[in-house]
Parts: sequence; structure tokens; C-alpha cells
Amino acid sequence: MLLTNATIATLKDNQTYGLIEDGAIALANARIAWVGRAAERPAAYADAQTHDLGGRLVTPALIDCHTHVVFGGNRAAEFELRLNGASYEEVARAGGGIVSTVSATRAASEDALLADALTRVDALIAEGITLIEVKSGYGLNQDTELKMLRVARQIAQARPVEVRTSFLGAHAVPPEYKGRPDAYIDEICIPTLRAAHAEGLVDAVDGFCEGIAFDTGQIARVFDVAVELGLPVKLHAEQLSNIGGTQLAAEYGALSADHVEYATDADAQALAASGTVAVVLPGAFYTLRETQSPPIQSFRNHGVPMALATDCNPGSSPLTSPLLAMNMACTLFRMTPLEALLGMTAHAAAALGMADRGRITAGAQADLCVWDVTHPAELAYRIGFNPLHQRIFRGSL
Amino acid sequence: MLLTNATIATLKDNQTYGLIEDGAIALANARIAWVGRAAERPAAYADAQTHDLGGRLVTPALIDCHTHVVFGGNRAAEFELRLNGASYEEVARAGGGIVSTVSATRAASEDALLADALTRVDALIAEGITLIEVKSGYGLNQDTELKMLRVARQIAQARPVEVRTSFLGAHAVPPEYKGRPDAYIDEICIPTLRAAHAEGLVDAVDGFCEGIAFDTGQIARVFDVAVELGLPVKLHAEQLSNIGGTQLAAEYGALSADHVEYATDADAQALAASGTVAVVLPGAFYTLRETQSPPIQSFRNHGVPMALATDCNPGSSPLTSPLLAMNMACTLFRMTPLEALLGMTAHAAAALGMADRGRITAGAQADLCVWDVTHPAELAYRIGFNPLHQRIFRGSL
Ligand SMILES: [Zn+2]
Ligand SMILES: [Zn+2]
Repeated sequence: MLLTNATIATLKDNQTYGLIEDGAIALANARIAWVGRAAERPAAYADAQTHDLGGRLVTPALIDCHTHVVFGGNRAAEFELRLNGASYEEVARAGGGIVSTVSATRAASEDALLADALTRVDALIAEGITLIEVKSGYGLNQDTELKMLRVARQIAQARPVEVRTSFLGAHAVPPEYKGRPDAYIDEICIPTLRAAHAEGLVDAVDGFCEGIAFDTGQIARVFDVAVELGLPVKLHAEQLSNIGGTQLAAEYGALSADHVEYATDADAQALAASGTVAVVLPGAFYTLRETQSPPIQSFRNHGVPMALATDCNPGSSPLTSPLLAMNMACTLFRMTPLEALLGMTAHAAAALGMADRGRITAGAQADLCVWDVTHPAELAYRIGFNPLHQRIFRGSL
Repeated sequence: MLLTNATIATLKDNQTYGLIEDGAIALANARIAWVGRAAERPAAYADAQTHDLGGRLVTPALIDCHTHVVFGGNRAAEFELRLNGASYEEVARAGGGIVSTVSATRAASEDALLADALTRVDALIAEGITLIEVKSGYGLNQDTELKMLRVARQIAQARPVEVRTSFLGAHAVPPEYKGRPDAYIDEICIPTLRAAHAEGLVDAVDGFCEGIAFDTGQIARVFDVAVELGLPVKLHAEQLSNIGGTQLAAEYGALSADHVEYATDADAQALAASGTVAVVLPGAFYTLRETQSPPIQSFRNHGVPMALATDCNPGSSPLTSPLLAMNMACTLFRMTPLEALLGMTAHAAAALGMADRGRITAGAQADLCVWDVTHPAELAYRIGFNPLHQRIFRGSL
């Protein structure tokens, strides 16, 4: 199969879009076999079946490398309460906050959780997503954490999309362990990680390192188990303050450090040295009306790859539009449209440890988006607009 | 025709959603004939054909009361240039800014302008819009201003949507009148308004009252012609500074004063006294990274109706999602989800001078949205998500 009559943004390096005009892409066995100018295609493809893309733009398919799409309930009532002037205490008394999501997630059946998650996954797929990372972390007990991860796995059965799971037992201290985070880590989080791994449910191990969640010592205990089990790690770090999460992530050679608004230039250097991706999450920054931007220029200076993601979750980022995340990265963080596209493709793949995704090069998996735009900058420029013409997943149109 | 099995947000007053559980709506001749609890429906509807809405939420259809959807070209290249660090001078030298849109709009055929506008209109319709205001203002000469308004009228022929036009000749000073705004107003703007009105192309007269555009004296001359022609007025006022536009709008009994970030409490009082709607445009506030919010609390205190709109335009708000505008109004301006919904329905109708739109009451036009959500607050809470199940325009499903 040969895709023809396309402008191709290959993203083959990180400095340019790697644009090919009058391009063609040969697909074979769900992989990209060849990409280049149509006029220069090898003789082997002379008789290949062709599919004319009408001069449209082709990019790597989009990848959402940080989501919490599996959860019960929603927090619209809390959103409304706050805007009507309720204090945090009043919201908490009305059952709001993460505790409300934990309760709803514990109460929901696997089928209900899946059905609900699929409404969000469908929105992501509609904008060209072919690979989604999904975290646990609203169970905070063994049964529910495992239930969330099983639902995450089921998403890939229910829809033409790939799923990578992250175990996020260290997301918050549940009410029954209030004031006893160490006991929660030792009695629930770590045993649950071992059980989830034994069931084959864990692709990576994540944590929330923050004053309101867990400190670096507690996260390190979880990461040590991940190392023992041979699982890669990643971390919610430096979102609301700097307490050393980014340095910890770098020490463990983490795939990614996520949020990182309060990371310093030294933190950026540490990430560069460990080959860790910085994942920026402008949807949460926007929703929480944060004012401290991540140190984008430091990441550039030190060559830290920057990914971006929706962070889709019911509290701080009920966002299911990767294209809007790209616009927000540009508008709010002053990333360039090229950085935003790399952040939703090649660098998102790196944040999941998947080298053969996110660029249009021979050998990569054939996950592509065909867009009704003429230049890739238009993808980040427009707001609330979906110009996706066709999504190609594992070579099938 | 009787719509049944719905939760109905009637918005019958401005204090509550006016929710009716187990509600029904009778439609006749493109109007709402009756609305209430299904159990209480009049005997006359006992044999009516019914349409079961599956327990979904019904609201008035959405109205976008401030758009510039007709224009040539796009400004993605300029967006990218700026993010790559180009100065305003460099952008201007590269042909950027409103002048680039004016050139592209002048150069485009009516057919091309229509086709391009329809891609944006389709995005609006997909989120439940049934009525769109469309402005001229990228022609700045007689031929092109008339061309834009004809294209705006054609939108309503090409799609199942209603269009209200606003003549915005006083949008910017074109290059050929640089430094001579008064001459532009007298030689081009006013004669073009008369010509457009003679052709039946003008439903309202608008202007951009700002240091970088026109002062109150220049706008007043245009408004005087509007009054002479019997046309209502509205005004882009106090977006970037306070130069008296809101007071001027109030003096002329304008339908709306739009943007109004820099309006004062006294301005809010003046709007209340003149019955003028304040139209807030969070998409432009977001894109321009403004920090001065409109005086929402003053508008509340004085009972000024607040509408909101996408302001869809190629420079400061390339936004085609009314639901995202609602989320932005809540997140950025701290409006409540109820205020956001009123702003996209009843108050948007008022900003266009159309009293029989935007509420679900007997006698109103039967423009409705059926949503896959359980509570209206969810419409503003989610980001980049479209739960529209069905749009009903003039009573047809
Ligand atoms: Zn997260
Ligand atoms: Zn405008």
C-alpha cells in the first residue's frame, strides 16, 4: 500500500517539521516501509496499490502520554459550587475533591467504568490519537486499583487504540489512611503494585510527589519496588512547589517527569543527563489558573525533550482535546507549534519508552494522521476545531 | 410533535436553570407550543406524535452573537513566527497582522470565502449553534465589505442556521488611509454602510472603538447614520483600554457592548440603564494573554445581562467551539455555569435584539439542543468535548 499525493511532516529530527512535498509513504505489515518524494519511490513500489490523500498534510498520529481517563462520576457539581463562591471547606463538606472521585470509582462496576472511559477515549481518537497512557490512582485500595488497570487494558480491546498503563497507587492518601501516608505506602500501595504486576497490568510506575501527596522518601520506596520488578518509572513532579521530585525522577532514570512547573534550571540539567522527558500539562495549568510556567527555555537549553498531554482527569483537567492541549502549550507556555507537535508525537512516544512511534521513518509503526490543513502550524493555531480527515492505526485506514 | 422523556433547562428566568424533570415540549409551526412536566401535558397533545429523548438534557440551542467567520487566509504562519520569537515589526514586515487578512479577503472570490467560512460554521453547528452573528470588517473598501456581507447571507442558504449580519466598516484603518481615520470614515465607511443597507445586507452596525482603531467621535458619526437608517448598533468597546466606548454604546441604546475588559462600574451602570447587553469574549482574552478581566461582579450588581461568544476571527480568537467559550468564561472570568449557558442562549439572543430565542417558553422559536449529559453544569465543566446528541432547528430534528 502506497499513500500518495501528500505533504508529509516526518518529524525525522527535532529541529524542523521534516516536510516532504509531493510525498509518498509505503506501508507494509503495519509498519512504514519507506517514505520520501513520490517521484523518487523505489521501483519495488511501482505496482503497489495506491491511496491518494488529495494533497493533504500527513503527520505521525497523536499520542496522549498522560491521562487519567478511567474514573467514576464527574466533578461538574463541584466546579459549579466553587464558581458560585463556595470555599474549599464547603466543597469538601459537600463531598467534593479527589475523595468524591475515589468513592465513585470504588462504587462503579468494571463495565460502567469502561463505558464512561470510552466516551473520553472516543473524543481522543476523533482527534487522531492512536496511543493513550492510562493511570490508576482513584482506587487507593487493592481491589479498585486492579479494577482500574483491567479497565484500562479493556480499552484497547474495545477500540482501535493502543494503551499503556501506569500504576499510580501513590496518587493520594485515602481517607482511611488520613495522616498516615507511610502506612498507606507500605500496607496498600506496594502490595497492590506487586499484585497488579503479577496480573500483567502494569507497564510503568507513577507517583504524585507533592506537599499534598507524597514526599520523595515515600515515592522512592515505591520506585525501589518498580526497579525490583523491572518496571520503568515516571513521576508527577514540581506541579505546585519544588520538593525534589524531578531530581528523584532523574536519579531513577525515569521515562518522564510530568507537570514540572516549579522545576529549576538545575532540574532541567538533571533530566537531560538522565534522558528523562519533561511532560507539560497545560490543561491543568489552565484549569487551576496557575501562573508559574514550566521552565521551557531551560528545557530547550539543556536539550530536554518536551512532551505534552491532556492530563484528562475529572478535577484539574477535564480535557479531551489533544489539539487544544497543543494550542494551550503555545498560548500559555510559549512553546512553538513544532514543539507542540513533537510533544504530542515523538516526545510523547519517548515518555512512554516507545522508540518506534511518533515519527514517519522507515521501520516505525504505521500510525498516521491525515489533516485538512496545508501547514502543520495550523494544528496548534486553531482553537476548538478538528481538521482530522483520516486516522491510520497500524497501517489500516 | 411532542418531545418527551427529557430533563429540560428552560432558562425561563435568569436566576436558575428552570429545570423540569420528566419534561415534555410540544412543537408546532417551528415554535414551542407548550413546555412542562409530561404528566401535566394538556389533553390536546394526548394523540400527538412523540419523540423520546431517552432522559437526556434539553437546553435552548446555542447562539454565537459575535463572530468574524467570513475572512480570507489564516494567520497560522504569523502565530508560528511570533512563537519563534519574531518581534511585532518583523511580523508586520512579513505581511502579518490584520492587513494580511484584509489582503486575503479582498483577493478571495465570494465562493472561496463562503467555502472557507462554512468549515467554521460547520464546527459551530456541530456544537449546537442555530443562530450566528457575522460581521464584515476585513474589506475596508466598498466592494469587499459588500462581498463579505453577501457571503454572510449565503451561509444561511447553505446550512440550516440563521445569520444576523453586522456592518463593521469601522474595524480598522486600511493601509491606503493610514493616518487618516476621519477621511476613511467619511469617504469609505459611511458610503459603504449606505450601500450595504440599500442592498438589504445590514442587520446592525458595529465599530471598533480603541486607541488602535477609532475614537468615540468617529464611531458616533457612523452610529448617527445607523440611527438615520433605523439600524441598531453595537460596539467593540474597552477591550485594551478605556476610551469611552461603553458610555457611547449606552448613549445610543446599543444592543451590546462587546469585550469590555476595561469597563468600569460606572460603565456597567450605564449599560444597565440603556438595557445594553455586555458581551464577553474569553477566546480573545485567552489568546492575547490579557490579565484584565471584564467587571463581571459590577455587571451582576447592576443587572447587566452578560452574553458570551466565540469572537471567531483569524487573529485574536481562532476559536470555533462555543462550549469551550463557556468553559473559558467560567475558568478565566469566574462566571458561573448558569451565567455561561444564559450567555450562549437567552442573553446572546438579546445581544442580537431577538426576544423569541434562547429560552424554552411557549411562543419561542423551536431551536433546541439535546445533550448526552445529566446536568447543565457539565456543558461548561468539560474542556474540548462535545456531548451534543441532537440539534433541533426551527422545530425540525
Ligand atoms: Zn496526572
Ligand atoms: Zn470582534
